[in-house]
Amino acid sequence: MMNEGLKVAVIGGGSSYTPELIEGFIIRAKELPVDDIYLVDIEEGKEKLSIVGELARRMFLKAGLKTRVHITLDRREAIKDADFVITQIRVGGLNARASDEIIPLRYNVIGQETTGAGGFAKAIRTIPVILDICRDIEELSPNAWLINFTNPAGIITEAVLKYTKVKAIGLCNVPIGIVNNVAKILNVNSKRVRIEFVGLNHMVYGKEIYLDGQNITSTVLEKLSDTASINMNNIPDLNWDKDFIYALGMLPCPYHRYFYMTEEILEQEIEDLKSGKGTRAQQVMKIEKDLFEKYKNPSLDEKPKELEKRGGAYYSDAAVSLINAIYNDKEEIHTVNVRNNGAISNLPNDVVVEINSVISKAGAKPIVFGKLPIKINGLIQQVKTYELLTVEAGVTGDYYTALMALTANPLIPSVKIAKKILNDILVQNKDYLPQFK
Amino acid sequence: MMNEGLKVAVIGGGSSYTPELIEGFIIRAKELPVDDIYLVDIEEGKEKLSIVGELARRMFLKAGLKTRVHITLDRREAIKDADFVITQIRVGGLNARASDEIIPLRYNVIGQETTGAGGFAKAIRTIPVILDICRDIEELSPNAWLINFTNPAGIITEAVLKYTKVKAIGLCNVPIGIVNNVAKILNVNSKRVRIEFVGLNHMVYGKEIYLDGQNITSTVLEKLSDTASINMNNIPDLNWDKDFIYALGMLPCPYHRYFYMTEEILEQEIEDLKSGKGTRAQQVMKIEKDLFEKYKNPSLDEKPKELEKRGGAYYSDAAVSLINAIYNDKEEIHTVNVRNNGAISNLPNDVVVEINSVISKAGAKPIVFGKLPIKINGLIQQVKTYELLTVEAGVTGDYYTALMALTANPLIPSVKIAKKILNDILVQNKDYLPQFK
Amino acid sequence: MMNEGLKVAVIGGGSSYTPELIEGFIIRAKELPVDDIYLVDIEEGKEKLSIVGELARRMFLKAGLKTRVHITLDRREAIKDADFVITQIRVGGLNARASDEIIPLRYNVIGQETTGAGGFAKAIRTIPVILDICRDIEELSPNAWLINFTNPAGIITEAVLKYTKVKAIGLCNVPIGIVNNVAKILNVNSKRVRIEFVGLNHMVYGKEIYLDGQNITSTVLEKLSDTASINMNNIPDLNWDKDFIYALGMLPCPYHRYFYMTEEILEQEIEDLKSGKGTRAQQVMKIEKDLFEKYKNPSLDEKPKELEKRGGAYYSDAAVSLINAIYNDKEEIHTVNVRNNGAISNLPNDVVVEINSVISKAGAKPIVFGKLPIKINGLIQQVKTYELLTVEAGVTGDYYTALMALTANPLIPSVKIAKKILNDILVQNKDYLPQFK
Amino acid sequence: MMNEGLKVAVIGGGSSYTPELIEGFIIRAKELPVDDIYLVDIEEGKEKLSIVGELARRMFLKAGLKTRVHITLDRREAIKDADFVITQIRVGGLNARASDEIIPLRYNVIGQETTGAGGFAKAIRTIPVILDICRDIEELSPNAWLINFTNPAGIITEAVLKYTKVKAIGLCNVPIGIVNNVAKILNVNSKRVRIEFVGLNHMVYGKEIYLDGQNITSTVLEKLSDTASINMNNIPDLNWDKDFIYALGMLPCPYHRYFYMTEEILEQEIEDLKSGKGTRAQQVMKIEKDLFEKYKNPSLDEKPKELEKRGGAYYSDAAVSLINAIYNDKEEIHTVNVRNNGAISNLPNDVVVEINSVISKAGAKPIVFGKLPIKINGLIQQVKTYELLTVEAGVTGDYYTALMALTANPLIPSVKIAKKILNDILVQNKDYLPQFK
Repeated sequence: MMNEGLKVAVIGGGSSYTPELIEGFIIRAKELPVDDIYLVDIEEGKEKLSIVGELARRMFLKAGLKTRVHITLDRREAIKDADFVITQIRVGGLNARASDEIIPLRYNVIGQETTGAGGFAKAIRTIPVILDICRDIEELSPNAWLINFTNPAGIITEAVLKYTKVKAIGLCNVPIGIVNNVAKILNVNSKRVRIEFVGLNHMVYGKEIYLDGQNITSTVLEKLSDTASINMNNIPDLNWDKDFIYALGMLPCPYHRYFYMTEEILEQEIEDLKSGKGTRAQQVMKIEKDLFEKYKNPSLDEKPKELEKRGGAYYSDAAVSLINAIYNDKEEIHTVNVRNNGAISNLPNDVVVEINSVISKAGAKPIVFGKLPIKINGLIQQVKTYELLTVEAGVTGDYYTALMALTANPLIPSVKIAKKILNDILVQNKDYLPQFK
Repeated sequence: MMNEGLKVAVIGGGSSYTPELIEGFIIRAKELPVDDIYLVDIEEGKEKLSIVGELARRMFLKAGLKTRVHITLDRREAIKDADFVITQIRVGGLNARASDEIIPLRYNVIGQETTGAGGFAKAIRTIPVILDICRDIEELSPNAWLINFTNPAGIITEAVLKYTKVKAIGLCNVPIGIVNNVAKILNVNSKRVRIEFVGLNHMVYGKEIYLDGQNITSTVLEKLSDTASINMNNIPDLNWDKDFIYALGMLPCPYHRYFYMTEEILEQEIEDLKSGKGTRAQQVMKIEKDLFEKYKNPSLDEKPKELEKRGGAYYSDAAVSLINAIYNDKEEIHTVNVRNNGAISNLPNDVVVEINSVISKAGAKPIVFGKLPIKINGLIQQVKTYELLTVEAGVTGDYYTALMALTANPLIPSVKIAKKILNDILVQNKDYLPQFK
Repeated sequence: MMNEGLKVAVIGGGSSYTPELIEGFIIRAKELPVDDIYLVDIEEGKEKLSIVGELARRMFLKAGLKTRVHITLDRREAIKDADFVITQIRVGGLNARASDEIIPLRYNVIGQETTGAGGFAKAIRTIPVILDICRDIEELSPNAWLINFTNPAGIITEAVLKYTKVKAIGLCNVPIGIVNNVAKILNVNSKRVRIEFVGLNHMVYGKEIYLDGQNITSTVLEKLSDTASINMNNIPDLNWDKDFIYALGMLPCPYHRYFYMTEEILEQEIEDLKSGKGTRAQQVMKIEKDLFEKYKNPSLDEKPKELEKRGGAYYSDAAVSLINAIYNDKEEIHTVNVRNNGAISNLPNDVVVEINSVISKAGAKPIVFGKLPIKINGLIQQVKTYELLTVEAGVTGDYYTALMALTANPLIPSVKIAKKILNDILVQNKDYLPQFK
Repeated sequence: MMNEGLKVAVIGGGSSYTPELIEGFIIRAKELPVDDIYLVDIEEGKEKLSIVGELARRMFLKAGLKTRVHITLDRREAIKDADFVITQIRVGGLNARASDEIIPLRYNVIGQETTGAGGFAKAIRTIPVILDICRDIEELSPNAWLINFTNPAGIITEAVLKYTKVKAIGLCNVPIGIVNNVAKILNVNSKRVRIEFVGLNHMVYGKEIYLDGQNITSTVLEKLSDTASINMNNIPDLNWDKDFIYALGMLPCPYHRYFYMTEEILEQEIEDLKSGKGTRAQQVMKIEKDLFEKYKNPSLDEKPKELEKRGGAYYSDAAVSLINAIYNDKEEIHTVNVRNNGAISNLPNDVVVEINSVISKAGAKPIVFGKLPIKINGLIQQVKTYELLTVEAGVTGDYYTALMALTANPLIPSVKIAKKILNDILVQNKDYLPQFK
């Protein structure tokens, strides 16, 4: 099935992140031989796709590899007989993201593209498209592995695993980013750091932290609440409260700020909007414009440094090393989004969690974690409830399920506001929501 | 063990609610023969205790019953060999309630004496006292049943069942109040109405509603969201959103307004405070003053009508009929706070839930409910998490556990505010919190 | 829906047990008004049906009731718009029972019609028929309650609840028989005795025994292991080992002898066969012949005493009082076969268990039991595994599933014997096993 | 903590298996540097200990290693500050094993030293001793890892993890033996074979079999039921029934023969006894005598080939590579006995299971398996019930718990026989059962 000469399809191939991926394949070319990469995108992304595709070709060429880069709008051609399908789509583009970020702010609610109401809007726009892609995979490459990057990655993976037969693994750069940041704080090589992650996508905790196998959790937590900071480019860099970190006794992820520092984040978002700095979408549009200018340069034949500002650092590492672990049956441990299956005792077996898992040709099998510490149980249960309702709303297009989903989201303070935001989202995104009649 | 000639101890016997209880015993005197009622209170409540005790004596006298009413400050005397112990205490009195309601409002957070930060303060004040009472029961009347009214009843019952061997059942008038309100809406006798309740104390849902055994849930829900209202005296009477009720598909309880209508309630609380109407505690102080004036009247020999304004309507019915069902081994169904034991599949076996249970001499055994509907799972999980952390904080006096408890409460928007409120609570209540060093 | 004027359909109406049922309806006629009883049977049972039907008519007549007794071979006519459907069928008749009892004995394995290999044969013969009946109910009386007596009642109810939408409750006379026997031992009225039953059909334990609400379990267990015996007519009356009963600490049911006294029972069965006493089926054939002779007598207008020998004592009480509790929405507690739904924490939610349940118009809701005591967990898990595999084999007709089912049965000592017995059963019953190609 | 210069204590160091272990350490000396090995035994084993110890010294010498071999009867000296403690004890020696094998046969019940009644006797003899060893570890080397080989390994590990704080992992050579046998059948290197094991010790199933990451389960099962055989030296080599293997759909372990081929095994045991071949214990005594003669030879400086006949093949590989994976924090996957913690959804979190686990410095963490296939659920539940009751009996010395344990064992056909066997065991082993008064 998976012989030499892999075929990889990248849906949303015109993304500015693609050079990250290409670099990842180049670095691992010896053990992970890719014959064909299909970069596929939609009509609106044609130009970007072409720019990125040409850059990819130059990158492979420079690396002395014979990998063929196919630039295409024909998704089915790309998927047919693929060994791996990577989805990194953004339904509605950055304009939709901008509205995801702005609508909640109208009602004094955090606007963020993956958590909160913004993530909800992104999810219900994306679910019909991803399920459509999965139908193609079921038909054209049933043995392919789907590696999903598309955010909100936990919800999208949940939808795929619940409603299709596709072998899917959801992936996020947050865990690998935390490992790298901890290594930086400790001033050691990141290979020496290992973290027991548990939770949900963008809601993952580092339960125990090891350096060379020794548990150093409390040391890291002290450093963390002192001066050092673990963050992503796209999240306001607010310091954690020292007592809170001590009370929590584990590592929060950067996105936890939305839940534990709700007002501070909200304040900053409102200020950014007022000050003309704009929402993150607006900032990203500028960054992207610059990036594609760079990509166009025919003498550029490697990933430009500026790409790291974009927020997706380590995606290449996370994704291609995951593919590598599958292809080469490595039994390596990666942190991925996968069906719980009992790994977290107090979540249902059939929901998706983000957890350390053993990766081999047989896929991703979580390592058991046991019961969630009571300290984090409530928030995780609440967010998972929100996610399940969102998946159901995204699939059925039922208004009332959507209302209950938003009501269940801990960032939304009341039914009244949930309803207003929902109505705005439905109006704003109506072209992307065929399921909502 | 439980022969004719019951001894009942009422801890907090000086409460203005006591005449309700007395009336309950009088009504059921034929099948529930009480020889001795001990009304016990603390030094500060001596005068009220005496007033209420005398009224109780006059009430029994008028009813032609020989029940002896004992007025005492000696708790151990009251508990010794009791068949039933009823706890209706208020540690710190109404002054403490006032501060419970006001402190959160300083930070724009709902102040309520059973949910939210106010309930947290009340819980940690009460836990050391209730555990102390339970030590007495373990020693002096190990076979007694403890019927706990003391709020937050779910948390207090959780503490008792987790940290003592006392046979305890937690009781609240919310379920019986809802049944009576639904009967009123339908204009039928409340005996014909039956509701399948599930959830936590002050967080209980009416999953199915039956009239004469026929399921009429949707009919009632429609009426509810039209014009009729189900409420308690002590909660702002805001109408439910029609779409929300339809989406929910079950009956919320009045206290759910704090969680689903957070801002509206908060607005009203702030307005009440500003307008001089005062918090609920301040209103209750006035009502109580009037009530005790009435109670003093030596010609009063029955429960005065005004008592119903106080918020505890149906307590008599709920409590004495529960005692009656135990004593007479009735196998009746009551809604009580009891160990889950599998009744709600997705909550742990050992936590306290509020649920329909079969009451007999063997105690309260829940009727299985199965899995919580996903719609309500998140909120219930979150609140139960908060409750468990609160019990732990109340028992250990650990600052960090207390911080995590408040952080887990869905009414508190951030760690920063949780910390401020916690610090204020600890300062304000320091005389009642020996466990916090 | 369930107005005055009930229609009751009895499938297998020609059974010798029917007069029991009729008596049950007569006794409760005041609160349970039945207009029409349809006794339905198959062509082969025509004569018996007619005899029993005439007797039923005479019984109602004598009681001064106007209930109409319909004698018919048209099952669909009987089921149409019925309020209650009672199934008491015996696929293959007593001849099949005889072979169920004899085949296992060939291989030195207990032959019994409800447990062990005999019960397996009966189950796979019955499942296609009961599912067929359920299809009729789904079509013709979807709101009807199915009360299933047909053995093995646990397995048959499992099949119905898993593969149809029919509202079914499985019923057995073992629990009520035990209550009556305990009352006899204690020399008290059986209404004063209450037993907390838990387990599976014909595998139910009396966990706690109460007299007037007082727990008297150890007293009863002592008496039991002394001299008194609790048994059914159809099970060899072997005394329990005193140490075993003490170790078990709860009441076994008569059928437990097959599992705890396997060799003694087997010895006796072999002896009975050799001595010419015959298997139970052969004895029952004689009893039945005599009974039907009696039933024919046109002057007989009540249930003859001899019926009690037949083994089905208390069926009438069990069944009609269950129907009565449903119809009159009584919230009474009965021991029935019902979906577990969390009542027993260490069995899956979706399997059928035999357990105390609250009976009302909404059906049967189990009272939570919690975790099975470890002492009985193994056997119950093993037998439930056998039952689930048997249901699957009975529905699919898969040879390999059938082999695993018999292998899982604790009465069958090896795969080799399981296979021999299975092959014999398939040959012997081939006319009744359309699902096995 | 675990620096260069490991100290390893081997309790039961005089075992004939010890040269296996020594060889394992020699092979891995480069990455697993052992400074000191303490071989400790009891007075009765003094001579054997000395013989084996001298051989061990010669082996290290030949290998050019400086590892010091300490021969001692002082267990506490050996345990003090050890990094790893290996337990391979046999309480009562081979004489006790002989009685374990013979007593059940008196009652026509399989006699085997790890499963059935023989294993029960061994377990209750061993539990007091192993708990005593653990008390020493808790005091003298609380950070040490206990690697337990002592049979019945599942039960002993269960006792240790339930009643002590020692970090223990239970180990068995069955899984590694199966992998090697499958490799032999396929004629490939065993490193290319990977099996997903699940179950209990000596009750483990190979759920999926992979060759180079490709699932080849059905191929192997076909070969298995054709001609090839997977077995241990100590189990009668009976062929599996082809239909059964197909029905099972996974790989049974050799010990499963006791449960699925009960009569065939029993027959052979009885025959062996009659024919003078003797029980396995008697055969082993002869083998051991020969082995120790060999070990005495001062020119022997390596593991003699004959050791493999002894039944413990691959122990060295299993044990030392496990220690190596811990020491070097390898995150390798081994099949070990470890707390379930949710890995098998339908077993409790706190019981010991045998399952594939990730091994690192943090110990063994199971990979989630999910729900047991229904086909094997019953037997595993039954045997785990037996194991838990055995642990409780072994710790408390309670006769009634012991009776329920044997009753729960699927190889024992009735309470009557359970009681007879139990009584014989208690009499025969009374010197080793201080806990049974």
